[in-house]
Amino acid sequence: MGLEDKVVITAALTGVAANRAQCHWIPYTPQEIADEALAAYNAGASVVHIHARENDGGPSWRVEVFREIMQEIRKRCPIIINFSTGAVFVERDARIAHIRELKPEIAALNMGTMNYAKYSPKRKDFVFSVVFHNPFDDIMFFLDTMNKNGIKPECECFDLGHLESIFPLMDMGILKNFQVSLIMGVVGGMAATARNLAHVAGLVPPGVAWEVIGISQEQWLLVAAALALGGNIRVGLEDNFYLAPGNMAQGNGPLVEKAVRMTRDVGREPATVEEARRILAVRSP
Amino acid sequence: MGLEDKVVITAALTGVAANRAQCHWIPYTPQEIADEALAAYNAGASVVHIHARENDGGPSWRVEVFREIMQEIRKRCPIIINFSTGAVFVERDARIAHIRELKPEIAALNMGTMNYAKYSPKRKDFVFSVVFHNPFDDIMFFLDTMNKNGIKPECECFDLGHLESIFPLMDMGILKNFQVSLIMGVVGGMAATARNLAHVAGLVPPGVAWEVIGISQEQWLLVAAALALGGNIRVGLEDNFYLAPGNMAQGNGPLVEKAVRMTRDVGREPATVEEARRILAVRSP
Amino acid sequence: MGLEDKVVITAALTGVAANRAQCHWIPYTPQEIADEALAAYNAGASVVHIHARENDGGPSWRVEVFREIMQEIRKRCPIIINFSTGAVFVERDARIAHIRELKPEIAALNMGTMNYAKYSPKRKDFVFSVVFHNPFDDIMFFLDTMNKNGIKPECECFDLGHLESIFPLMDMGILKNFQVSLIMGVVGGMAATARNLAHVAGLVPPGVAWEVIGISQEQWLLVAAALALGGNIRVGLEDNFYLAPGNMAQGNGPLVEKAVRMTRDVGREPATVEEARRILAVRSP
Amino acid sequence: MGLEDKVVITAALTGVAANRAQCHWIPYTPQEIADEALAAYNAGASVVHIHARENDGGPSWRVEVFREIMQEIRKRCPIIINFSTGAVFVERDARIAHIRELKPEIAALNMGTMNYAKYSPKRKDFVFSVVFHNPFDDIMFFLDTMNKNGIKPECECFDLGHLESIFPLMDMGILKNFQVSLIMGVVGGMAATARNLAHVAGLVPPGVAWEVIGISQEQWLLVAAALALGGNIRVGLEDNFYLAPGNMAQGNGPLVEKAVRMTRDVGREPATVEEARRILAVRSP
Repeated sequence: MGLEDKVVITAALTGVAANRAQCHWIPYTPQEIADEALAAYNAGASVVHIHARENDGGPSWRVEVFREIMQEIRKRCPIIINFSTGAVFVERDARIAHIRELKPEIAALNMGTMNYAKYSPKRKDFVFSVVFHNPFDDIMFFLDTMNKNGIKPECECFDLGHLESIFPLMDMGILKNFQVSLIMGVVGGMAATARNLAHVAGLVPPGVAWEVIGISQEQWLLVAAALALGGNIRVGLEDNFYLAPGNMAQGNGPLVEKAVRMTRDVGREPATVEEARRILAVRSP
Repeated sequence: MGLEDKVVITAALTGVAANRAQCHWIPYTPQEIADEALAAYNAGASVVHIHARENDGGPSWRVEVFREIMQEIRKRCPIIINFSTGAVFVERDARIAHIRELKPEIAALNMGTMNYAKYSPKRKDFVFSVVFHNPFDDIMFFLDTMNKNGIKPECECFDLGHLESIFPLMDMGILKNFQVSLIMGVVGGMAATARNLAHVAGLVPPGVAWEVIGISQEQWLLVAAALALGGNIRVGLEDNFYLAPGNMAQGNGPLVEKAVRMTRDVGREPATVEEARRILAVRSP
Repeated sequence: MGLEDKVVITAALTGVAANRAQCHWIPYTPQEIADEALAAYNAGASVVHIHARENDGGPSWRVEVFREIMQEIRKRCPIIINFSTGAVFVERDARIAHIRELKPEIAALNMGTMNYAKYSPKRKDFVFSVVFHNPFDDIMFFLDTMNKNGIKPECECFDLGHLESIFPLMDMGILKNFQVSLIMGVVGGMAATARNLAHVAGLVPPGVAWEVIGISQEQWLLVAAALALGGNIRVGLEDNFYLAPGNMAQGNGPLVEKAVRMTRDVGREPATVEEARRILAVRSP
Repeated sequence: MGLEDKVVITAALTGVAANRAQCHWIPYTPQEIADEALAAYNAGASVVHIHARENDGGPSWRVEVFREIMQEIRKRCPIIINFSTGAVFVERDARIAHIRELKPEIAALNMGTMNYAKYSPKRKDFVFSVVFHNPFDDIMFFLDTMNKNGIKPECECFDLGHLESIFPLMDMGILKNFQVSLIMGVVGGMAATARNLAHVAGLVPPGVAWEVIGISQEQWLLVAAALALGGNIRVGLEDNFYLAPGNMAQGNGPLVEKAVRMTRDVGREPATVEEARRILAVRSP
């Protein structure tokens, strides 16, 4: 089995939007996050995507918190670390400081500005609706820091035009070694359909690794579609709590286990951390 | 969960191309075939697709053999019966007699003429290469019998143009209540890719049920893609022996069990026989 | 030839971004704009899309200016009037007042927030890069006014996710009789490719009229693609000055003439104003 | 303008299916065919695709006839010559003899077996319906002759699976320098839609030139789609007589003139013969 049949499974361990009232197993402290990283690693993930939280679960952009998370994870396992830079209502300097200081292997780079909403067909209303600001000026600002520090950008694309925003940056020579995440199911961005994924994944530049990120339970449909289309996948409590309708996962481990099972069911294999480093072309820490 | 989230799982129990030297668990006799139908039913299939064999495993078009298969299955379980009409080098009268006599709920209708080959990249040669003849004249001949006997055609489409051959027949008014199978991976027909499936499934007329049929181990990739795209699926020893590389299934039951697991993993549910009758709009026997 | 082979040609007469230093034939005053509307009508357009300008060419949102434009056009010809509501850095009240007061048949409704940029491969830099704000709250605010005044929204979609933002609004019952414009080629939105158009146009709800809007000279490629895909088209000095490389159009008339020729060249016919009213389901003024 | 914006226009001068009772301007004799080749060349075509006829218009496979056609064309202009090998009810030896003897730059290679029919919605019946036989064995037989004689195959693909039949031949190393024609609109093969073309053209191996061939008046829609998708085009009396509904072309020249106009209308340019030789990678004669 060649590397092209290996699947990089990323676990998005915690996010910042949900809390323990909604899901008891969401990790808050660096130790808890690192324990979840280990559980994900043991289950078959090769990358963790991380947002930091204060000990009460609130979002944190403090470098010391990210540092402690990184140290705790490195103690436990060799999993690849991907730190978020995405936030609504937070200054861009705050969103990049931990990247500059801590130099994770990968950092998320949000590739577009958009309406970012959730709709409830039951209530016939938006659950929330905000604007997620990522003007080109900010994208280039983040990219500059990543380039100077040898950090691989994970281009987070919530829409077709976000993916195609890659091309001017490549043409300017400031976006070179990167990977692509196709995030589907946020209202305002592209919908969570396998048909959309087949189209958009076909536009990722040849040789560039891509993964799908599905929000809520539709995630599992997209995982199946991405596995069939040759892509990588992301799961984890940040994106979706449920193994099945009504069956909440007791941590990231069971979500990764399900992702591993689905990977093997289509005839592919989860990439080890070492294989993932080669597939994603990320340096060792 | 509405009917649109239910998945009709068909088990293609035996076929005619393979034999017990290749896979010990292929059923030959009517009793063996019916036992496999029961195993598939118990595992979660709602339809069986059947070719008849003589007791030595050779292909059979004798009506009595099909009759005995049908009787033995009916004794065991209420699963929906779909009889094949497809063959290379067999006269069309022989390919339809059992349909006229026995009136299964569904009969396969091959929608095009094509090169039908298998290629070995290892040997750098075709393993076999024949022409599969299904001229429009034969298609209309088969359809006439099905229409007169209230049998639902399963339009077997090995290529994009086979699917689009449906339109003149609909326009003539001779193809009315039908379902579509998209068969992928035969060399000469369309390749087994999720990208092809996303395109071709999008062209099935609205309201018409469709399933994917994948040949060999690529089947599981296509099952994942079809589940994600909202389609039905077919598995079974006719199409593929293996649960995973090197792991041959000990009968159709384990293959259907895997299909059921994959169905639930994307958040859908296998249709019961009664649900399948409504989804496919087939009469009770 | 049925209505489905008729092509609604819209002329975007003036826009606000360009000026006479760049293109001598851009109309500024209500009389000039109305003269261009007549030229477009005579050439075969059935709809005009209009931004208002002050007499010096600067952008205007004054109701009296829009009123004079409307009156001058109505004097000259029965063409369908579509007024813009799109602007960067303008309050939403100002963007909708003329719609409420003047009740054009159609008003543009921008369906998403986005990075809105132009890139120069020659300079290796953005020519401009801003954020175009259209949060759902504003979309619903505009829609409310249009619904109360019987004005048909033209949903302007610069990206896949903008088109799919239609679905919650339809589900809430506040977006009913509407048409779709697919705007391609703005950096930050979807790229101007026929492959994108084939995908996105396939997602427009059945029975809803759609058109393509291409920015700059790539417009003509998209016009050809939309004509082949069964869509309507928009041309005009707002979108593109050039008939061919180096050959600037002397007004909107020649651009519409070219659109008419391309329409007939694929075997379709421009819709008359009366046919366009039926295709778009817009009331008479 | 780079070569990628140049369009190779092929003129299919005569075919064998139609006759002068249907279209007065169809050429029969070598002189007439060569005169039409010159007219096509003068209008902007860089390749001619040719079937031979006897002087009474009936189909001919006689090498002397093809030889005379070639000589007469060479006298008149340097246009690239592509000879057909396709026929129903003709032995394969007869279909390839002129290729071996005369070594045109390009020869057509039909890539699949299929139902080949024409349907009349008015009559609610097939106008004709045959099987077009091109088993892999014949394909390899033709290819062997082309390879030995340095003739570039034009892989004629009437369906998705015909295009994908290229891959085993490439893997065997017997199909190397080739071009692809996507033929749309024959009932039994893929339908003449821009949506199909967008999908199928996306599967042509990178770097391989492709053209669209549309049958009957839908041709012009497909020409527009192919021009927008970056492909080459074929027109000519073999495929379609009409410039517009009811307006029969008085020879191949006017059809090529229309193709040239459509090419320029999207912002591309017809390739000269020399440019076409480079784009198609064909030797000089």
